[in-house]
Amino acid sequence: MIHANGVSVFAGERMQRLALSEEDKSVRDWFIQTMKDLKCEITVDEMGNIFAVRAGKRKDVPATFIGSHLDTQPTGGRYDGILGVLSGVEAMKRIDELGLETEGGIGVVNWTKQVSIRNLEGKMLTHANTPMAAHFELHIEQGPHLVSAGQRIGVVTAVQAYRWFRLKVIGRDTHTGTTAFEHRADALYAFAQMMVCAREVAAARGCLASVGIIEAKPGSVNTVPGEVSFSLDIRGPETDLVAEVEKELRKDFDAIAAKEGAGIGKPCRVEWTLDFDSPAVKFHEDCIKCVEQSAHAVVADAPVEDTKSLVRSIMSGAGHDSVFTSKRVPTSMTFVPCKDGLSHHPEEFCSADDCATGASVILQAVIRYDRSRFS
Amino acid sequence: MIHANGVSVFAGERMQRLALSEEDKSVRDWFIQTMKDLKCEITVDEMGNIFAVRAGKRKDVPATFIGSHLDTQPTGGRYDGILGVLSGVEAMKRIDELGLETEGGIGVVNWTKQVSIRNLEGKMLTHANTPMAAHFELHIEQGPHLVSAGQRIGVVTAVQAYRWFRLKVIGRDTHTGTTAFEHRADALYAFAQMMVCAREVAAARGCLASVGIIEAKPGSVNTVPGEVSFSLDIRGPETDLVAEVEKELRKDFDAIAAKEGAGIGKPCRVEWTLDFDSPAVKFHEDCIKCVEQSAHAVVADAPVEDTKSLVRSIMSGAGHDSVFTSKRVPTSMTFVPCKDGLSHHPEEFCSADDCATGASVILQAVIRYDRSRFS
Repeated sequence: MIHANGVSVFAGERMQRLALSEEDKSVRDWFIQTMKDLKCEITVDEMGNIFAVRAGKRKDVPATFIGSHLDTQPTGGRYDGILGVLSGVEAMKRIDELGLETEGGIGVVNWTKQVSIRNLEGKMLTHANTPMAAHFELHIEQGPHLVSAGQRIGVVTAVQAYRWFRLKVIGRDTHTGTTAFEHRADALYAFAQMMVCAREVAAARGCLASVGIIEAKPGSVNTVPGEVSFSLDIRGPETDLVAEVEKELRKDFDAIAAKEGAGIGKPCRVEWTLDFDSPAVKFHEDCIKCVEQSAHAVVADAPVEDTKSLVRSIMSGAGHDSVFTSKRVPTSMTFVPCKDGLSHHPEEFCSADDCATGASVILQAVIRYDRSRFS
Repeated sequence: MIHANGVSVFAGERMQRLALSEEDKSVRDWFIQTMKDLKCEITVDEMGNIFAVRAGKRKDVPATFIGSHLDTQPTGGRYDGILGVLSGVEAMKRIDELGLETEGGIGVVNWTKQVSIRNLEGKMLTHANTPMAAHFELHIEQGPHLVSAGQRIGVVTAVQAYRWFRLKVIGRDTHTGTTAFEHRADALYAFAQMMVCAREVAAARGCLASVGIIEAKPGSVNTVPGEVSFSLDIRGPETDLVAEVEKELRKDFDAIAAKEGAGIGKPCRVEWTLDFDSPAVKFHEDCIKCVEQSAHAVVADAPVEDTKSLVRSIMSGAGHDSVFTSKRVPTSMTFVPCKDGLSHHPEEFCSADDCATGASVILQAVIRYDRSRFS
């Protein structure tokens, strides 16, 4: 079993390493040097994505990759993304120690902050100097599914659909002390009703709807806000379900806006802007099989009666670098449990044992995939 | 009838003259010079409040004042506060032109931004070098009461009670894509329910409850906000009613918070901080009578059958400099109609006719009060 010591190198109470910041540059330098020491060839593309490849026997085929991102969310934790790259580094160390000779090359990629990748996803994957055979990613789970069931490994088969919107509610700013409720076109009150409505509509379809960002203008204690902007994140297991929730909310939000301010003949109105649309993703069967077989092999000597029960199939609720690679190359992911299923949070925590188990699964999955390509 | 030409000097599409800014300094300089030219003696206290007094026959008695503020809200209009001081300037011009000899002195005061006054209200009025006999203030109405009834003058008899709070809802930030609704402690969702609840509770008691400022942290599209801060402004005709609304909302908000996050044993909680408490104010009978008599006198030659109907008693929904002066000296206010009853807004508008009518009422009221003191 591999000990993912690397994780502790980056441990800290809080973790903020924004893409292309000073801290990000340090860890990138570390990554490049470490991978060079492990006999990897380094390529950096115009987005700052770093590809480290250890050559295999066959020089004319693309490498099989392990990848994720070393940069973090604005208030991120120590595992989201970072564990995925470090598991690649550890896998490469193990391959190097064992002197393993693979068929094709094996690579580790550090993707620059997910949003940038999205903007250039087509360019990145079709024109990169470093083509890929497949992409595997290890990640802490995001939601307390494994941890609450006492399971060790999640074989990720799919990623739910999601759409991100920016909405603007336009009302009228008036004095809080002198404007009766029926004379108001209170954009923030309309927003409040919309948010309550969104949860209800999404829940009825087994979907999620969330607001993460809100701004109310002009922002004065005694002025009714005349303009509110907010983000809306709709997710669901199927692309069509997300579209249904959107359609219903467009109707409901219009109705809420129309009512607020109707008393003065100046109803609120609401504008939608689609920022990002990610249809549901089904990962590649071959990759899923490699992860599944590796997971069962890794937990085989665990001290429980039915080791098979330690592994489960799972759908990812969140977007990942793998969502984008999956559009171009066979891809799948592996989840490991984490405390309370918490991610994108300074308190996120994954035990050293779980990190190591995940890293072992990823290593085995890559080796299995490499062999299966030429058998 | 006085023509309040001064108003046009300051007319502009938008108006932002924050207290103690460069723009504020210019208008203060203008005010001081203008009042000196009208034979006033100037005193400036440590808060920057400017007192301009034209002496009367009796040197040993405090002057009767007209006052308001020349600075504006962050996105204010051209009339809020400004009209009050300019009506004083115009009154003084008229007194000077007519060579009127008053019993006590007549003064005009430009108060520095209301918030500062509040902080030092006791100090200001007990220790100022410029004691006051009474304080009269002309203001545009704030709410479309006069304008929608076709009335010309509001005799302000009282100001409603209000309390300003800052609230903080503490939940837990988690990933929007992977955290089921029942596993969330979504501080923004709790806020949304609170805002909907607040309107209902306030309306049931004939009060108002408003949120003007909101901030959600950490502020990321795919993170459920773990902390939300917002302002809450509760107003009502009686101090006790405002207290009742507060009491009910404290109970209801606690219940809303307790429910959100209960599924994971980590419910939201809510913290209240009282920022400002202004009990209901009843203006002084003598001052109200002076304004009322003056109002009827000014509209007496209006081309309508029942000129009395052009004047009405009114309660102010908003705080004003007069709320603070009323704690120490006899005080009352005069309202004039404005477009849509809109104030604290770049679009606020009061016709030159209405400005002039208001200024005439204020001048007469001050003269009446001055005479009544010694009759």
